[in-house]
Amino acid sequence: MRELKGIPASTGVAIAKAYSFVEPILSYDQNHIQEAEIEVNRLKNSIASTKEQLQLIYAATRQHLGEEKAAIFSAQQLVLEDPVWIAAIIEQINEGKNAETALTEITDMYRAMFLALDNDYMKDRVIDIQDVSKRLLADLLGVKLPDLSLIDSEIIIVAEDLTPSVTVHLNKQYVKGTITNIGGTTSHSAILARSLGIPAIVGTKTGTLDIEDGTLLIIDGEEGRIIIDPPEDVKMFYLTKQKVLEEREELLRNYFSMSSVTMDGHQVHLVANIGAPEDGETVLSEGGEGIGLFRTEFMYMNRNRLPDEEEQFEAYQAVISKMEYRPTVIRTMDIGGDKALPYLELPNEMNPFLGYRAIRISLDRQTIFRTQLRALLRASKFGKLKIMFPMISTLEEFRTAKSILFEEKEKLLNAGVIVSEDIEVGMMVETPAAVMIVDLFAQEADFFSIGTNDLIQYMFAADRLNEQVSYLYQPYHPAILRAVQKVVEAAHLNGKSVGVCGEMAGEQIAIPLLLALGVDELSMDPSVILKARSQIAKLNHEELRKHMQHILTLATDKDVTEYVKLHLL
Amino acid sequence: MRELKGIPASTGVAIAKAYSFVEPILSYDQNHIQEAEIEVNRLKNSIASTKEQLQLIYAATRQHLGEEKAAIFSAQQLVLEDPVWIAAIIEQINEGKNAETALTEITDMYRAMFLALDNDYMKDRVIDIQDVSKRLLADLLGVKLPDLSLIDSEIIIVAEDLTPSVTVHLNKQYVKGTITNIGGTTSHSAILARSLGIPAIVGTKTGTLDIEDGTLLIIDGEEGRIIIDPPEDVKMFYLTKQKVLEEREELLRNYFSMSSVTMDGHQVHLVANIGAPEDGETVLSEGGEGIGLFRTEFMYMNRNRLPDEEEQFEAYQAVISKMEYRPTVIRTMDIGGDKALPYLELPNEMNPFLGYRAIRISLDRQTIFRTQLRALLRASKFGKLKIMFPMISTLEEFRTAKSILFEEKEKLLNAGVIVSEDIEVGMMVETPAAVMIVDLFAQEADFFSIGTNDLIQYMFAADRLNEQVSYLYQPYHPAILRAVQKVVEAAHLNGKSVGVCGEMAGEQIAIPLLLALGVDELSMDPSVILKARSQIAKLNHEELRKHMQHILTLATDKDVTEYVKLHLL
Repeated sequence: MRELKGIPASTGVAIAKAYSFVEPILSYDQNHIQEAEIEVNRLKNSIASTKEQLQLIYAATRQHLGEEKAAIFSAQQLVLEDPVWIAAIIEQINEGKNAETALTEITDMYRAMFLALDNDYMKDRVIDIQDVSKRLLADLLGVKLPDLSLIDSEIIIVAEDLTPSVTVHLNKQYVKGTITNIGGTTSHSAILARSLGIPAIVGTKTGTLDIEDGTLLIIDGEEGRIIIDPPEDVKMFYLTKQKVLEEREELLRNYFSMSSVTMDGHQVHLVANIGAPEDGETVLSEGGEGIGLFRTEFMYMNRNRLPDEEEQFEAYQAVISKMEYRPTVIRTMDIGGDKALPYLELPNEMNPFLGYRAIRISLDRQTIFRTQLRALLRASKFGKLKIMFPMISTLEEFRTAKSILFEEKEKLLNAGVIVSEDIEVGMMVETPAAVMIVDLFAQEADFFSIGTNDLIQYMFAADRLNEQVSYLYQPYHPAILRAVQKVVEAAHLNGKSVGVCGEMAGEQIAIPLLLALGVDELSMDPSVILKARSQIAKLNHEELRKHMQHILTLATDKDVTEYVKLHLL
Repeated sequence: MRELKGIPASTGVAIAKAYSFVEPILSYDQNHIQEAEIEVNRLKNSIASTKEQLQLIYAATRQHLGEEKAAIFSAQQLVLEDPVWIAAIIEQINEGKNAETALTEITDMYRAMFLALDNDYMKDRVIDIQDVSKRLLADLLGVKLPDLSLIDSEIIIVAEDLTPSVTVHLNKQYVKGTITNIGGTTSHSAILARSLGIPAIVGTKTGTLDIEDGTLLIIDGEEGRIIIDPPEDVKMFYLTKQKVLEEREELLRNYFSMSSVTMDGHQVHLVANIGAPEDGETVLSEGGEGIGLFRTEFMYMNRNRLPDEEEQFEAYQAVISKMEYRPTVIRTMDIGGDKALPYLELPNEMNPFLGYRAIRISLDRQTIFRTQLRALLRASKFGKLKIMFPMISTLEEFRTAKSILFEEKEKLLNAGVIVSEDIEVGMMVETPAAVMIVDLFAQEADFFSIGTNDLIQYMFAADRLNEQVSYLYQPYHPAILRAVQKVVEAAHLNGKSVGVCGEMAGEQIAIPLLLALGVDELSMDPSVILKARSQIAKLNHEELRKHMQHILTLATDKDVTEYVKLHLL
């Protein structure tokens, strides 16, 4: 038995075998060339075995995730049958290149060619070709590509990092937990695990390097503990703990149809952060009272072109209808920063978090923005839509965004399209500048949502994804509490509401603090809504407010955290 | 005649020929190999002509900047005479490589070897070898390397960008102005031009691409105007304007020995930002009342190893003595962000401005920090030293930095070293978090200096060096004015003083605003001190304070700027 510690990122206990997910390096020697005939045979053998692999992946994905998600793999099999493509590669081999070089060059050529065409269908094909080419190259090199869609027994993923593109075809049924060397509590792998309701441990640095595939692991997502190859008694202990946790989960279901009130009758709204229209289902099944943040940027990612108005309309309509007149906050796209879009050709930036992103792109490339706004406006009649602009830091930005929205609304009305008459228009508070002049914004915005993830990183000038300075991600620091207080005061003075939609909104320590500061709405991962509601039911709002007077005199994040643990949990 | 517009970055009029400064791309084909004998001859010819070039550069630098700065070029000539190095390159050629490849490989090998040695002298040699190798490579490729040290007639530099490493050997006597395609008013080329007192225009995008070397140019640094190939009458007009400006400069000398007071007797302190100990001279000759910011990081840059305690002590002693008991604020190193140090092996960061920099490095690598603190403490007895910590955002950071300082002081005192008893210890206010809790800092710091350059970029979450978002560098935005107000109020309540040391401190529009907000000290480029003093002499502080009540109700940077232009200039 060995033990490792990491940062706890999603609670729960998992006991399963390690599945080591390592993206291999596909490098090869251009100059190692055998006879053309041998190279052609290598290529053909790899095509055949890659086709078999794809068939397996297709079958597995279809079984676990359905035909729609599996379709991509049957499309990829077709690439392998394209005679023109294969002939082009063979021609390169005949010119004296090895199979790997020939394949890579033809793939690059196809990519350039397809992207140059002004044809959305062809652009979508580029991803398929690149994916197939990667599989083929791995096969040529005798390297095994790990594939999360092929998992068919209960496992715990052990990886350097997990990105959205590798987890999209994850077979969720069998993944019992995740461990990643990099990342913090707001990294993709942490968010993914929380949305799957499985334990996750992040930031183990190089700790997982020598965990062998198939070793039995226990992870305790509450304590950030990883136990490698546990003896029977340790395993028994954690099986018991797992059971206790499951019972606790069961008890939480009692809060499902209750409203979110403290013992002295102060009500707040517990709503959800989501990234895809289909998440609406989960929001309702987890007792969410609406959607506090629909991150539309995920609709723009992992594809080769912008989503058109119709696609967007359908997505917005789906989620708005699903919510049945519960408030549904949809944020216009927050691309840029750590979310790049290859097809938009965004500039390479020295500091992308301080760069061309979110509303800055929308106001600069208005065609993209107007398309999104039209889709939103058209979908508004199906429920209670609230539109929110991200990364606002000056009044000019908010005013311009709002006037573009009204222009598009006018145009639609003139064309006879029905648009809801009570769409609220609000903004994220995530730049310190917005906090400093929130009193001015409160006269013009219908509502605020404080994006604490970004706000904290700008307040402390510290990238939360940079481990070297991640100790400066201090959500309970007085600077942050005072910022929240400032926003709430200005908003309430103008009769506007304030939500918090950063990661902290769902955290046990934050909840009493945010309630005491008067925040009206907490927007969190659906998986923690019931837990938050049960915590709130045990709090006394009047007492919290008294404690807050003292808390606001404390000097450090550490002091605040200790005080909350001692008096408010 | 053609005209171009750019961002005005340093005032004045210059009339001179264009000197096009373009760093060529030194690429070559590894596979183009002639007979070994031919390659060896190419190498030998290039060595000979590079030696001649270096001799010219040496002579020019010696004549214009003195023996000390020229010495580097005689050292570089010695590299070209090193028989072992030459033999190693020839050996590579004999193994079938061309001269360029052989040269590059041996240079890389030497570099790795020298850096691996734990010997400061050898590490210093690496830069020489790399420089010589670059010159040799250019000669082999028949490419002319531009060299700012060889300028021997009056010119205006036209460049994509100017970095500290290319301007270090600039022949200041002949450079009459600069035009750069990239950069804003706080870029290196802008700061350099202001310190030389020559006009500069930045951010012309690709505008300068077709300005031919040697074309006559006029630049008007007040209006950001570039006139290419002007006719005689236009030239006459600008000669007159130049004369008027020179007379204005002359008049400013009247303010040399006055103190900096408004007409109603409110006094502020006008001090200087400097980057090297020898700048102390300029501070005094420009009427500075002390030093508000000595940026020590420049002592760490453009070299191959850390400056040792003795070197630092001498530099600090020089500048402190020079100031003759005028206050001298020395800031501990602010490395990181956009200032990298290859020999420190800092991590590669996604967002360096939100990364491992300044006090964060100092507290993490304490040997470096303690060396700097000891040098400062030992130099303190020569004048009025104030030590300032950069990038503070939590009380823990300030307390730890201060306690390390006191530890080193104790050690020195115990060893019998004399240390001044009244060193003030202050901090930069440049993170929004520091602004939010400045009342807490005011109880522990002896003084504040607001670093508006960084503060603005963190407030708006916008990298000021990124042209795509540089419109968000808004120094007169209410969020910034309110931040300054907050700092001044908290500081004065605790009897502490507040300076501003960002670029805006020396700007005409900022000066009435900062005075009205109660800032005690403005720290600026020495070249603008007299102008600031003359502006202040015409202001009425009581009236400014009344205006400020109105200004603080304005909503945008634009509104504030217009108001100041209308009422306060």
